[in-house]
Amino acid sequence: MNFGSDNLSGASQQVMDTLLEANNGYAAGYGDDEWSKQAVDEIRRVFEKDDLEAFFVTTGTVANCLSLACLVRPWQSIICNGTAHLATDESTAPEFLTGGARVVPIIHQDGKLSARHIEEHMESIEDDCPHNSEVAAVSITQSNEIGLAYSIEEIQAISKVCKRFNLKLHMDGARFTNALVSQGCTAAELTWKAGVDVLSFGASKCGALCAEAVIFFDKKLSTDFIHHRKRSGQLVSKGRMFGAQFVGWLRDDHWLELARHANEQAALLTTELNQIDDIEIAWSAEANQLFVVMPKALAEQLRAAGAKFYNWDQQALPPHLTLADDQCFVRLVCSFASLDQDREALLDNIRHYTNKMTASS
Amino acid sequence: MNFGSDNLSGASQQVMDTLLEANNGYAAGYGDDEWSKQAVDEIRRVFEKDDLEAFFVTTGTVANCLSLACLVRPWQSIICNGTAHLATDESTAPEFLTGGARVVPIIHQDGKLSARHIEEHMESIEDDCPHNSEVAAVSITQSNEIGLAYSIEEIQAISKVCKRFNLKLHMDGARFTNALVSQGCTAAELTWKAGVDVLSFGASKCGALCAEAVIFFDKKLSTDFIHHRKRSGQLVSKGRMFGAQFVGWLRDDHWLELARHANEQAALLTTELNQIDDIEIAWSAEANQLFVVMPKALAEQLRAAGAKFYNWDQQALPPHLTLADDQCFVRLVCSFASLDQDREALLDNIRHYTNKMTASS
Amino acid sequence: MNFGSDNLSGASQQVMDTLLEANNGYAAGYGDDEWSKQAVDEIRRVFEKDDLEAFFVTTGTVANCLSLACLVRPWQSIICNGTAHLATDESTAPEFLTGGARVVPIIHQDGKLSARHIEEHMESIEDDCPHNSEVAAVSITQSNEIGLAYSIEEIQAISKVCKRFNLKLHMDGARFTNALVSQGCTAAELTWKAGVDVLSFGASKCGALCAEAVIFFDKKLSTDFIHHRKRSGQLVSKGRMFGAQFVGWLRDDHWLELARHANEQAALLTTELNQIDDIEIAWSAEANQLFVVMPKALAEQLRAAGAKFYNWDQQALPPHLTLADDQCFVRLVCSFASLDQDREALLDNIRHYTNKMTASS
Amino acid sequence: MNFGSDNLSGASQQVMDTLLEANNGYAAGYGDDEWSKQAVDEIRRVFEKDDLEAFFVTTGTVANCLSLACLVRPWQSIICNGTAHLATDESTAPEFLTGGARVVPIIHQDGKLSARHIEEHMESIEDDCPHNSEVAAVSITQSNEIGLAYSIEEIQAISKVCKRFNLKLHMDGARFTNALVSQGCTAAELTWKAGVDVLSFGASKCGALCAEAVIFFDKKLSTDFIHHRKRSGQLVSKGRMFGAQFVGWLRDDHWLELARHANEQAALLTTELNQIDDIEIAWSAEANQLFVVMPKALAEQLRAAGAKFYNWDQQALPPHLTLADDQCFVRLVCSFASLDQDREALLDNIRHYTNKMTASS
Repeated sequence: MNFGSDNLSGASQQVMDTLLEANNGYAAGYGDDEWSKQAVDEIRRVFEKDDLEAFFVTTGTVANCLSLACLVRPWQSIICNGTAHLATDESTAPEFLTGGARVVPIIHQDGKLSARHIEEHMESIEDDCPHNSEVAAVSITQSNEIGLAYSIEEIQAISKVCKRFNLKLHMDGARFTNALVSQGCTAAELTWKAGVDVLSFGASKCGALCAEAVIFFDKKLSTDFIHHRKRSGQLVSKGRMFGAQFVGWLRDDHWLELARHANEQAALLTTELNQIDDIEIAWSAEANQLFVVMPKALAEQLRAAGAKFYNWDQQALPPHLTLADDQCFVRLVCSFASLDQDREALLDNIRHYTNKMTASS
Repeated sequence: MNFGSDNLSGASQQVMDTLLEANNGYAAGYGDDEWSKQAVDEIRRVFEKDDLEAFFVTTGTVANCLSLACLVRPWQSIICNGTAHLATDESTAPEFLTGGARVVPIIHQDGKLSARHIEEHMESIEDDCPHNSEVAAVSITQSNEIGLAYSIEEIQAISKVCKRFNLKLHMDGARFTNALVSQGCTAAELTWKAGVDVLSFGASKCGALCAEAVIFFDKKLSTDFIHHRKRSGQLVSKGRMFGAQFVGWLRDDHWLELARHANEQAALLTTELNQIDDIEIAWSAEANQLFVVMPKALAEQLRAAGAKFYNWDQQALPPHLTLADDQCFVRLVCSFASLDQDREALLDNIRHYTNKMTASS
Repeated sequence: MNFGSDNLSGASQQVMDTLLEANNGYAAGYGDDEWSKQAVDEIRRVFEKDDLEAFFVTTGTVANCLSLACLVRPWQSIICNGTAHLATDESTAPEFLTGGARVVPIIHQDGKLSARHIEEHMESIEDDCPHNSEVAAVSITQSNEIGLAYSIEEIQAISKVCKRFNLKLHMDGARFTNALVSQGCTAAELTWKAGVDVLSFGASKCGALCAEAVIFFDKKLSTDFIHHRKRSGQLVSKGRMFGAQFVGWLRDDHWLELARHANEQAALLTTELNQIDDIEIAWSAEANQLFVVMPKALAEQLRAAGAKFYNWDQQALPPHLTLADDQCFVRLVCSFASLDQDREALLDNIRHYTNKMTASS
Repeated sequence: MNFGSDNLSGASQQVMDTLLEANNGYAAGYGDDEWSKQAVDEIRRVFEKDDLEAFFVTTGTVANCLSLACLVRPWQSIICNGTAHLATDESTAPEFLTGGARVVPIIHQDGKLSARHIEEHMESIEDDCPHNSEVAAVSITQSNEIGLAYSIEEIQAISKVCKRFNLKLHMDGARFTNALVSQGCTAAELTWKAGVDVLSFGASKCGALCAEAVIFFDKKLSTDFIHHRKRSGQLVSKGRMFGAQFVGWLRDDHWLELARHANEQAALLTTELNQIDDIEIAWSAEANQLFVVMPKALAEQLRAAGAKFYNWDQQALPPHLTLADDQCFVRLVCSFASLDQDREALLDNIRHYTNKMTASS
């Protein structure tokens, strides 16, 4: 009953098989190997863009921060959602890896950062150069930290505001694939065709072991990337490691199948939990994560029974919900590896305990 | 009629005379001169603490940021008021000069950052080390960016919260002297006796030409300062420049007289503007700045008549005020050099125009 | 005939098998998994020190630079050999990842940085704090960039000088295992017992895919490491990846066998090339690398025949050798995967071409 | 008898008078005042270039490092002389203020860094991007740290090499004026006409109190400067301080007269010391500094008699000289304020002691 995070699973069999295959024999170092080249080709294929540039790094934090290092100067700022991983879970990596730029989280209760939020923020600030730090980029997470996915239209609207204010648009796609299958469109439509400049394309949470790509849809923005990557110690010598994982993951729609499975498990869980009186769905799963409010006693009993899941920051609660003293706000994450039997076991336990609670009250 | 900023005046005569005197002959470089030593002695005297450490730098931005560089590590955060100079007017100097630490502005509409604001913030965040950036310091501005001064009791309360959460307390004292004469207490009572760890002690806005001190009330916190100052290029070779300005400024209560004059001018202006129907006092002068709401047409006419003052960020409006479309929010600053005749001229102009407006309506 | 670098091979079978095994099921993230814990235990066992601290990162560059970030402050300096990877092949990662510290390469022609070199350097510099950057650490490479290994006695002598001048001693052990089997002593004797404070313990070049450890023999020095690692984006989510590789690599002396094989191949190559008139051994293999001077024509023909090896920087030539215009200086590296047949094929080709050259001259 | 440094004198009377004059009344802040504008105009006039850009900062260290921050990226390197202030006396400010770039001192014994030194260095290094840090700029000091001045021809030759290797040319002109009067040419000829891209134009050592300018002869290179200056805390609020000093200093050839006096004093001292048997001139004064070897006993006696001067780093000795155990290497600096009587007093003392030494031997 592990619903803790999608990074608690290993890699898929197909990814590991490809890694094993790639491990044989000699290969050029530092990403000049055939596997890495093939991986870039695969990325170009699935994003339908021959002139994009893609680079590989080890973590989502680095993918995000080095992306942004190419979009802003050290005296500029990046707008993001108040709940963004960039703002809350990457220590001061954004400041460090961009050479000193500022992350400005916009606090609101709407779940997703919208074009309107950005517009209002940009209109409210005054430009007093060089005293202020000028905003130069927006970062949105797709699917985001509370399990919501941006539609093509929402991204287009954000991109329009970005263009008006001369901001670059970065997408943190640690769970991009989950958003993609949820939106039922092409990867191109959900990114560069809608105005995204750079994508952190995460495989680690979605079926790989340790593989993240940074995709520059506009090649010109990528000039400095190899220097940033090298001097932050992210130029891995046996680069085939990344290449093989991406090749194995992208081959034959494997990545989409893995994400589809995770999303389906989360959707089922949403439907099923909706039936339980003591549980309120805070944010339904639009991708592979859902957030619910449940009695603290229940959470405790589930954990005692072996279930894994995290309590979540109350600031991410939707506006219509507040926590009672005996309630807690928790996140449930499904992954490519989630099993029906685990979901069912969780539900059985919930029903068991909530019945007991009802009976005793 | 210059009410633009207290840094638009030059230095006081006494400061310039001391500078001229110090300019004669040879003196040791890099702050090892007698004037600098005497200035540190004067600071120890006025703050009644023999074992404090004081260093000189050229700007308030550097004083703030290098203070904080000694209080937090590059992966930690600093809490401050949403209107703090540190957060709004120092570009990304805080990030840069601390080696990458984060400034977290707390947004509210109460004018001053209170112990309660800090407590609520600290209680709302979760400690998930090393993923989060741990809060390690609080910075308050005394007197602050909207002209309010913290009382001893308010600082004590903040210090108490800081101690509870293991936070260092920094005071941005670009206008410390204005706060000091407004509170009618000793410099010691308003700083280290109330729990302040480090003070940016500004002379530039209060009668000097270019002289800021960083005062460590706890010597142990100051160990790294000389290295930070050197490598940020702030170790001025003819250090007597700072020493002489501080000696001239602190001698014979000169600094207090200068601040008293500035505050009195601002208090008179508050009282007088309170009589004018078309003007609403947003924040009364508790030190040397006041903030008012006035008709845009009036502001325009005053400027046409030669008055200087700045429009201010509406986010600093008190909760009970909102701007009508034909109104603007402006800041009026008095300095040691403000003249009765300028204040009177401003008022005459205001009365003239508001009468005309009333007549024509 | 691949003698290009030891990072052109994949991982050993045993390492990959362990990785595959570890990939199954759920595991805690960010290094809190059982594999990572077991790997740290294995490191404590092979270094015979229960209270050492070990952390995992992805590249040798990061291992070196984050080690040093824990040993020096941003205004201090690190001494190293003029040929050190740290100084020549890590871009400006040392400056970046230490927050601005300086790398001072000592240029000489002795192959290894000796206690005497360090002592002479330290005696030649003046301490004019804070104007100068104070030297605070020494970094030596074991085995080093021209294939030489430091003996226990040499390290002890260096450590003695370090203690005299209050310098911390870092060892870049990207090829530590090759040095270890060459010296025929224990890992403890070659590191902490001889005075090494921190070791970059490299597995990637010696049989792993992507796994480096930073070992702090003195736990107190490691306090900041987790923060440096996090904010440089090196905290990999599926940490079992590192744990499994290290467990597979260290188990049953596997790491030593791999290194022994590489060294033997290099030793055989040295002996065999010594027989060839046209080839001069510049630096014999004390570990798994050797450096030779050969006719440019020969190098060209070998490459045409499929041999892989790099030309090397002439500044690394030993004092008794200079290059003629028709000569080149090349590096030959053996790895755990080097085959007898490749070495023999290289020699056959060399004999073939050198005979032809002799015949035609 | 103060020959310690040219920063031990105060400012000239004319500079102080202008500062006093500028202190009156209100002036715009942050360098938008009339004095600063006039100062830039004066700089354009004396350098005969209407489209140059000039900015003011407080120290030579900042002038150098922020100049270079505009010429190189954080992953690039700067070549300079082994004795350069940039490399030896600015702590790690170059690394810090450039965001991480590397300073590469070229060690030689020729006194000045020559076109040939740079060429040899550039030809000796291999370009292995992104592993190496690419050299992107050269910094030369005019007049330099051992009192030598570059001729127009020497600068032209250096510029030619720079262009060949695509390097920007920076000049550290903390004592530029001393070089200028020594070369007897125009400021334009000695800088941009000879190929200098950016000049740190120092007034502090040459008659001002605290005033340094950064001059970009090519405006396009200056785009980022205001941001670097702001976020390193160098945007002084009462900017007229710099403007007034520069106006007073540049007006009516005052700056040249001050430098001429300093150089003449140093030249006389060279000639006079040349007559003394026990003293060897190591480097004659080509500007306002000279370096001599003298008996340690003599240096001690001179200091006992009140003379001020510094011992210097032996690595700056010319190749034909080595120090005996009873000798020391010292620097003697003359400034605009040096008096004939002090020079004569020094010589009298020297003659007195050397006669005694001769008599007693």
